[in-house]
Amino acid sequence: MGLLIKGGTVVNADRSFKADVYCENGLITQVGENLQVEAECEIVDASGKLVMPGGIDPHTHMQLPFMGTVASEDFFTGTSAALAGGTTMIIDFVIPNPQQSLVEAYETWKQWAARSVADYSFHVAVTWWDDSVAKDMEYLVEQEGVNSFKHFMAYKNAIMAEDETLVNSFNRCLELGAMPTVHAENGELVAHLQAKLLAQGITGPEAHPLSRPSQVEGEAANRAIRIAQSLGVPLYLVHVSCKEAVDEIARARQEGQRVYGECLAGHLELDDSVYQDKDWGRAAAHVMSPPFRPKGHQEVLWKALQGGTLQTTATDHCCFCADQKAAGKDNFTLIPNGTAGVEDRLMVLWDSGVNKGRLTANEFVAVASTNSAKIFNIYPRKGHIAIGSDADIVVWDAGLEHTISAKTHHQNVDFNIFEGRTVKGAPAYTISQGKLVYANGELNVVEGAGSYVKRPAYPTIFEAVERYNAEQIPTAVQR
Amino acid sequence: MGLLIKGGTVVNADRSFKADVYCENGLITQVGENLQVEAECEIVDASGKLVMPGGIDPHTHMQLPFMGTVASEDFFTGTSAALAGGTTMIIDFVIPNPQQSLVEAYETWKQWAARSVADYSFHVAVTWWDDSVAKDMEYLVEQEGVNSFKHFMAYKNAIMAEDETLVNSFNRCLELGAMPTVHAENGELVAHLQAKLLAQGITGPEAHPLSRPSQVEGEAANRAIRIAQSLGVPLYLVHVSCKEAVDEIARARQEGQRVYGECLAGHLELDDSVYQDKDWGRAAAHVMSPPFRPKGHQEVLWKALQGGTLQTTATDHCCFCADQKAAGKDNFTLIPNGTAGVEDRLMVLWDSGVNKGRLTANEFVAVASTNSAKIFNIYPRKGHIAIGSDADIVVWDAGLEHTISAKTHHQNVDFNIFEGRTVKGAPAYTISQGKLVYANGELNVVEGAGSYVKRPAYPTIFEAVERYNAEQIPTAVQR
Amino acid sequence: MGLLIKGGTVVNADRSFKADVYCENGLITQVGENLQVEAECEIVDASGKLVMPGGIDPHTHMQLPFMGTVASEDFFTGTSAALAGGTTMIIDFVIPNPQQSLVEAYETWKQWAARSVADYSFHVAVTWWDDSVAKDMEYLVEQEGVNSFKHFMAYKNAIMAEDETLVNSFNRCLELGAMPTVHAENGELVAHLQAKLLAQGITGPEAHPLSRPSQVEGEAANRAIRIAQSLGVPLYLVHVSCKEAVDEIARARQEGQRVYGECLAGHLELDDSVYQDKDWGRAAAHVMSPPFRPKGHQEVLWKALQGGTLQTTATDHCCFCADQKAAGKDNFTLIPNGTAGVEDRLMVLWDSGVNKGRLTANEFVAVASTNSAKIFNIYPRKGHIAIGSDADIVVWDAGLEHTISAKTHHQNVDFNIFEGRTVKGAPAYTISQGKLVYANGELNVVEGAGSYVKRPAYPTIFEAVERYNAEQIPTAVQR
Amino acid sequence: MGLLIKGGTVVNADRSFKADVYCENGLITQVGENLQVEAECEIVDASGKLVMPGGIDPHTHMQLPFMGTVASEDFFTGTSAALAGGTTMIIDFVIPNPQQSLVEAYETWKQWAARSVADYSFHVAVTWWDDSVAKDMEYLVEQEGVNSFKHFMAYKNAIMAEDETLVNSFNRCLELGAMPTVHAENGELVAHLQAKLLAQGITGPEAHPLSRPSQVEGEAANRAIRIAQSLGVPLYLVHVSCKEAVDEIARARQEGQRVYGECLAGHLELDDSVYQDKDWGRAAAHVMSPPFRPKGHQEVLWKALQGGTLQTTATDHCCFCADQKAAGKDNFTLIPNGTAGVEDRLMVLWDSGVNKGRLTANEFVAVASTNSAKIFNIYPRKGHIAIGSDADIVVWDAGLEHTISAKTHHQNVDFNIFEGRTVKGAPAYTISQGKLVYANGELNVVEGAGSYVKRPAYPTIFEAVERYNAEQIPTAVQR
Repeated sequence: MGLLIKGGTVVNADRSFKADVYCENGLITQVGENLQVEAECEIVDASGKLVMPGGIDPHTHMQLPFMGTVASEDFFTGTSAALAGGTTMIIDFVIPNPQQSLVEAYETWKQWAARSVADYSFHVAVTWWDDSVAKDMEYLVEQEGVNSFKHFMAYKNAIMAEDETLVNSFNRCLELGAMPTVHAENGELVAHLQAKLLAQGITGPEAHPLSRPSQVEGEAANRAIRIAQSLGVPLYLVHVSCKEAVDEIARARQEGQRVYGECLAGHLELDDSVYQDKDWGRAAAHVMSPPFRPKGHQEVLWKALQGGTLQTTATDHCCFCADQKAAGKDNFTLIPNGTAGVEDRLMVLWDSGVNKGRLTANEFVAVASTNSAKIFNIYPRKGHIAIGSDADIVVWDAGLEHTISAKTHHQNVDFNIFEGRTVKGAPAYTISQGKLVYANGELNVVEGAGSYVKRPAYPTIFEAVERYNAEQIPTAVQR
Repeated sequence: MGLLIKGGTVVNADRSFKADVYCENGLITQVGENLQVEAECEIVDASGKLVMPGGIDPHTHMQLPFMGTVASEDFFTGTSAALAGGTTMIIDFVIPNPQQSLVEAYETWKQWAARSVADYSFHVAVTWWDDSVAKDMEYLVEQEGVNSFKHFMAYKNAIMAEDETLVNSFNRCLELGAMPTVHAENGELVAHLQAKLLAQGITGPEAHPLSRPSQVEGEAANRAIRIAQSLGVPLYLVHVSCKEAVDEIARARQEGQRVYGECLAGHLELDDSVYQDKDWGRAAAHVMSPPFRPKGHQEVLWKALQGGTLQTTATDHCCFCADQKAAGKDNFTLIPNGTAGVEDRLMVLWDSGVNKGRLTANEFVAVASTNSAKIFNIYPRKGHIAIGSDADIVVWDAGLEHTISAKTHHQNVDFNIFEGRTVKGAPAYTISQGKLVYANGELNVVEGAGSYVKRPAYPTIFEAVERYNAEQIPTAVQR
Repeated sequence: MGLLIKGGTVVNADRSFKADVYCENGLITQVGENLQVEAECEIVDASGKLVMPGGIDPHTHMQLPFMGTVASEDFFTGTSAALAGGTTMIIDFVIPNPQQSLVEAYETWKQWAARSVADYSFHVAVTWWDDSVAKDMEYLVEQEGVNSFKHFMAYKNAIMAEDETLVNSFNRCLELGAMPTVHAENGELVAHLQAKLLAQGITGPEAHPLSRPSQVEGEAANRAIRIAQSLGVPLYLVHVSCKEAVDEIARARQEGQRVYGECLAGHLELDDSVYQDKDWGRAAAHVMSPPFRPKGHQEVLWKALQGGTLQTTATDHCCFCADQKAAGKDNFTLIPNGTAGVEDRLMVLWDSGVNKGRLTANEFVAVASTNSAKIFNIYPRKGHIAIGSDADIVVWDAGLEHTISAKTHHQNVDFNIFEGRTVKGAPAYTISQGKLVYANGELNVVEGAGSYVKRPAYPTIFEAVERYNAEQIPTAVQR
Repeated sequence: MGLLIKGGTVVNADRSFKADVYCENGLITQVGENLQVEAECEIVDASGKLVMPGGIDPHTHMQLPFMGTVASEDFFTGTSAALAGGTTMIIDFVIPNPQQSLVEAYETWKQWAARSVADYSFHVAVTWWDDSVAKDMEYLVEQEGVNSFKHFMAYKNAIMAEDETLVNSFNRCLELGAMPTVHAENGELVAHLQAKLLAQGITGPEAHPLSRPSQVEGEAANRAIRIAQSLGVPLYLVHVSCKEAVDEIARARQEGQRVYGECLAGHLELDDSVYQDKDWGRAAAHVMSPPFRPKGHQEVLWKALQGGTLQTTATDHCCFCADQKAAGKDNFTLIPNGTAGVEDRLMVLWDSGVNKGRLTANEFVAVASTNSAKIFNIYPRKGHIAIGSDADIVVWDAGLEHTISAKTHHQNVDFNIFEGRTVKGAPAYTISQGKLVYANGELNVVEGAGSYVKRPAYPTIFEAVERYNAEQIPTAVQR
């Protein structure tokens, strides 16, 4: 049975226009006025509302095993919460242990994700290096539709990739037409500062931001960018949180380098005063890396989004409940790192972005969905309202007020970093794979309904990159 | 009779895809594979070729009365040459004399332009200020579809706008939902340096770039940007030619300001060594303002286009023949300023941009056409291949080699700044208003076939700008 | 009778060392240990204290006629207060009215200044332009020892210098070997914003900073710098108050341009929250231009001082009492602009600079005294403790605590912007022209004892500038 | 017997003045006019000449064992050549092998250096880390007057310091009051690019600059700076050669960080076209790291020297003759890295710096001598003409022309990178330790006459740094 979204204004990244949208078999099959549709189709009344491509969250960690525990949100609950917030696709992370086969880890994650209620895909982390890793990367790209690999520059003695691994893996990405991504923080400095703070007897969550000041992120951002520049490979930086990293990306882009940056709803909105909370639990609940930053950095991120230095928004959704956070009661370095947001991102982004005049509605769509689809090469299948695209759609009510709270959210965690905030602008309906899965506050999802989305290698920019690199090939002097 | 473009790859700014394109009554009415079209329609074979929105040149001066003479290219010859190069629309400039009514000047230009063979529109210059100017601006915006006003910061004692005029006019633009644009050069410094060089006995074209060094443009760019920032109005800088101006735009954009920049094919490719030509005529033929810049600036412009600091490309097409240039034989300040290029722009841009890996084909379309359409609010009517858009299309043969020369070009001028350059990639066919007007090197145009394109006020960004400005409104302290 | 400063540590800009200092006839005649001095000389016990060159305040306005009133501090009271704060020389400003002869104004100011108790000198403002101004400048440089000229880029319809005047006067400065200086604010924008705020009914002191936002200063700073660059002349920016202007200076210096910047004690310490004071009088008392800036700018200024982007500190000492400020009761644009500080500068600078580890004691001396002496070409006569230098000395007690207050200060004004602040580090003794004029809180000054200090043209950097400019001279092409 | 330098103009970093200078027992004992000196003293006629502190070269490698050979210049020949060029002191480098005791290496170097004819001192490299290194550092600082430690970020699998070593050693430097210094190049990237070039069959010297592009230096510079920032320690970057590194230093200094940069005479003057030389030997003779840079970087370095971003000049004097360079005949990575210049530096710097108007004579002294003395805490013993300073003096003849050539230079190497260049401005006389050692082209030196110069820890800036760091100490939240 078809689904007709009637009377709304379609808002794509490039423009807005009045049109009905008709969905059949998971795809958008008609866009326009006065559509000819089957009589008995389901109808969603979008009059006075905006019909936008569903959000894509390119950075989540569902049921991640991390720091001795496992994230409380699994793929079922997590993708459900996503749909409730208008996000119709996530890209999660496969994180192999050092020495573990990438393919093996990928299979594990894929199994976990089978319960998803919305579409999903995977970045795969490269946490170590040898020839088998290079071979696994090839297999994942060519057979499994993985077109991006993640590198942690922090977490020394755990999953941190040394420069040698970065160089090898970035180079391999270029050969395979895949995008390297990095978590940019200098792990060596973090380890040193953590030890120093503990030695000074500063053991609470207030030490967390002090152990990872913004220059630590700026350093790593620049290092990754310079490595990418030297190898001629594009680069994507996840969760850019501070002026220092933004400045590095801006500089690289002005130099013509193909560097992309993502920022999190949390980093856009919160500052590091949260770590001064007298209540240990509330302070600890905000522990994530990179940490929330001193006042001032938030506005820098917003402006970077507006001006095009950053292209995507995400959440780094990684949930740990109070009892899990308590593991670091006496030592902040043991507090599991992570905060939620997959459900809240679009609302917060609209409220602070569009309502305050920082973004147009089209720009909102770009940074909430389209740009991720483009960079990770699933556009226009995802991130676009057009004939032939997947019917992943959010019908947005720009006038709807909503108060965010852990008491009412669908996320499987006991805390919400936006607790109590009332936003204006929220999903009225969410359509996933052509089905109405969220309407007027009610979820109607099916476990396992989500599909794994293969992402082809060699997005367009790689063709340009290859021509560009070919122009740089040096030749020997004829003596 | 319809026109079917068959077998090509549609290249839009956002993506490429295989599709036929069908045009009827000046519009694109179908895009897709296996289209149902009338049997007797005209067919353009686009197999192996790229079907792109026709170029938009947002900066031309056809038959401009300037410096005591009149540009040799009129609207008929100029738009013909444009079509031969794949450019299907120009935005020319109405330039009132100080104290002249804007509307009167507009009517004059409109009459001249009636002979155009392709679509056209007008920016209108504000060269002076009083209440009647403010009123004329309103009339032009509301009645005539003018949504952009130009300001010359150079040409002292002629059409230069003082800061007071800039402030008043920018402010008026904000009220009217129109985009202010500037020619950024500090006219006071130019006048001083011109006089100094003449006094030193340096009177040839080699003095031209010395009289307008790049910091003179950087200064004016920053001044216009800061004025726009203080008033909360967007801004567009025409013919950005140097690192200094690029840096100012980049800085403003990083600060979240809505500032846009255009660059010319000539500035991207040529450097100031042309003014050292031993042949006076060749040197003088390159005299335009801003001048071609020292080596190094060109690469900065390219990177700014790639990275998004600049959004559009143009030509400042303004032709003067050798006998006209000769007016400055003994005094470089009397050489009529201007060079051609409306025919050559797309080919040069493709060859240096796409072939060298600086731009993807999609990015080429963006900077050659789509971005101008968006900024000047005629998207998706122009700048896009989609149902409902104007059928202004170029069918691009990426393998076609072409040698540029004044001997063979269609431009009505005796010189070509790209003389002798062989490019790879050129128009196979140009379709204007749904008609095949250029095919395999032959033009088939009709005088007066071009239409004036009204451009509505309040492009989307103005809504955001208004919300943003509203957030900044100060309030009095309650004492 | 000689004066022996015994047992202290001499602190010069380049180094510190233990030494006694002996003064005779207004000069330092011996520096060293175990000096041979006349038996009956006066002795100042400097043990445990620092012997530093007296402060130079290069920016004061004693008894300035301004905005319909006259500054309450005259040269007698003002230089007395300076000595109480360890400042032994001021450079004040001669400000001719437009059309007034520069020499005539200079004579007037010189007469007023004759009552000074400490040494003084004059910058002369160029507020208009014709040939007589050029001639007066020559006279002042060659006959009167004026080596710096000031230009106001703000105060439209009053003393604002248009670009044409800037270009002419900067050029004249280069010919004469004198330093051009600017008050950098775009007067056109200020006038526009003032009118707009008044029209909005925002008439109190809170409107003052809104009418002169920091970009207004940044714009003017860049304009002046670019003009100076184009002419090949050095430049000095007075009272740099914000990040935008600092960034411009830093950029110019990185480009090798000889640009210098001064900042005020007030701008280093206060932010714009002072204009939100519920008490109109307190808010109005802080009205000066450029205004105090939003939080964040202060730290930028400090870092610019540390890193060498700014070289000097001053006060813009210009006093108006409450009854004078009241002139703007209903209209903030009528509040006389100005705040005090000539007495407080060194103490505040030491406390926030040296005590907080931002400056070494040597760097303190550099920015408080030596750099002004160098830039304005009176070094090592002033700004240095060495044989042959003027005996203008402050003996500094780094452990002395002092609470700043209008109740106790020597400044002839009823308000102190640092009211209530307790600093650590203050003058124990001040020696002016070899005489002990301030000791343990007591002034002992003689009206008229101060001398006018002639400042020779062509400081060293002008030689380099001339060689540099000569390298840039263009030549005609040989055709 | 005393030595009287008569009739010259003393040029110090802060000012110039006419004075005679009298030297006794290795020290300057009188400075002034009409000095009272012993009748039979030696007299140097300095009339019409400049009397400047002798040059300090803070970066030399005499008889360095490196890349399988030993530098051809030993301490005797090297310091002799230095004196012939007006440089009266060098700071050389002790470079322990990984795992070798720092003190042991220091003793070895000290023994080698005993043959020096001029004063010398040592930086000591930290090439590995364990507790014994920390202990050795303490011994060297406290007992041996070493106040600076060097870290190589390049030379993977040899002397490269990993981030962990950098963090530990920088931190140790802070504790000891010593200055950490770095050779900033990312060794991982260099190794990768070297391997790639060799694999491409590009094995000649032309591959050398391609294997170490400027961003590789920029990356490492930023990394070192960010580590220093995070630890609160000052930093000195040796041989800054490119825009990227200059930009990083400039940014850090604008942020108030105490970062210093050195540049080499070679990098100021030569560009990377030298590696394109058809003659393998000439190309190889220029192989050093960082390599000479593409055109454009040189001017950036000059401007950075002028503007204060860089403070010192040096040579990295490290000589290998043609037969030594030949080791890399088939593999550029085996060419011993190094070029000469200790004799040429001042002349080249004067000619391009002072003669071209980039530097005043005082600024020349600062960057040639005084700033090194200050940063390495031997000012005013060295780097200054004043009573009590060491009598290390160069009498400079600004009009003397000299043509640089390997045929005539005193350096023990068969190549000169400035071959054939005629400079204007050269030493007429050099005085070392109060003795005339070079006069009118003739050296008169005594083997072993040079003394080791102890450099005390805790230069002034460390006091400020400690106060500054103390202000940053975090405190735990009181819950």
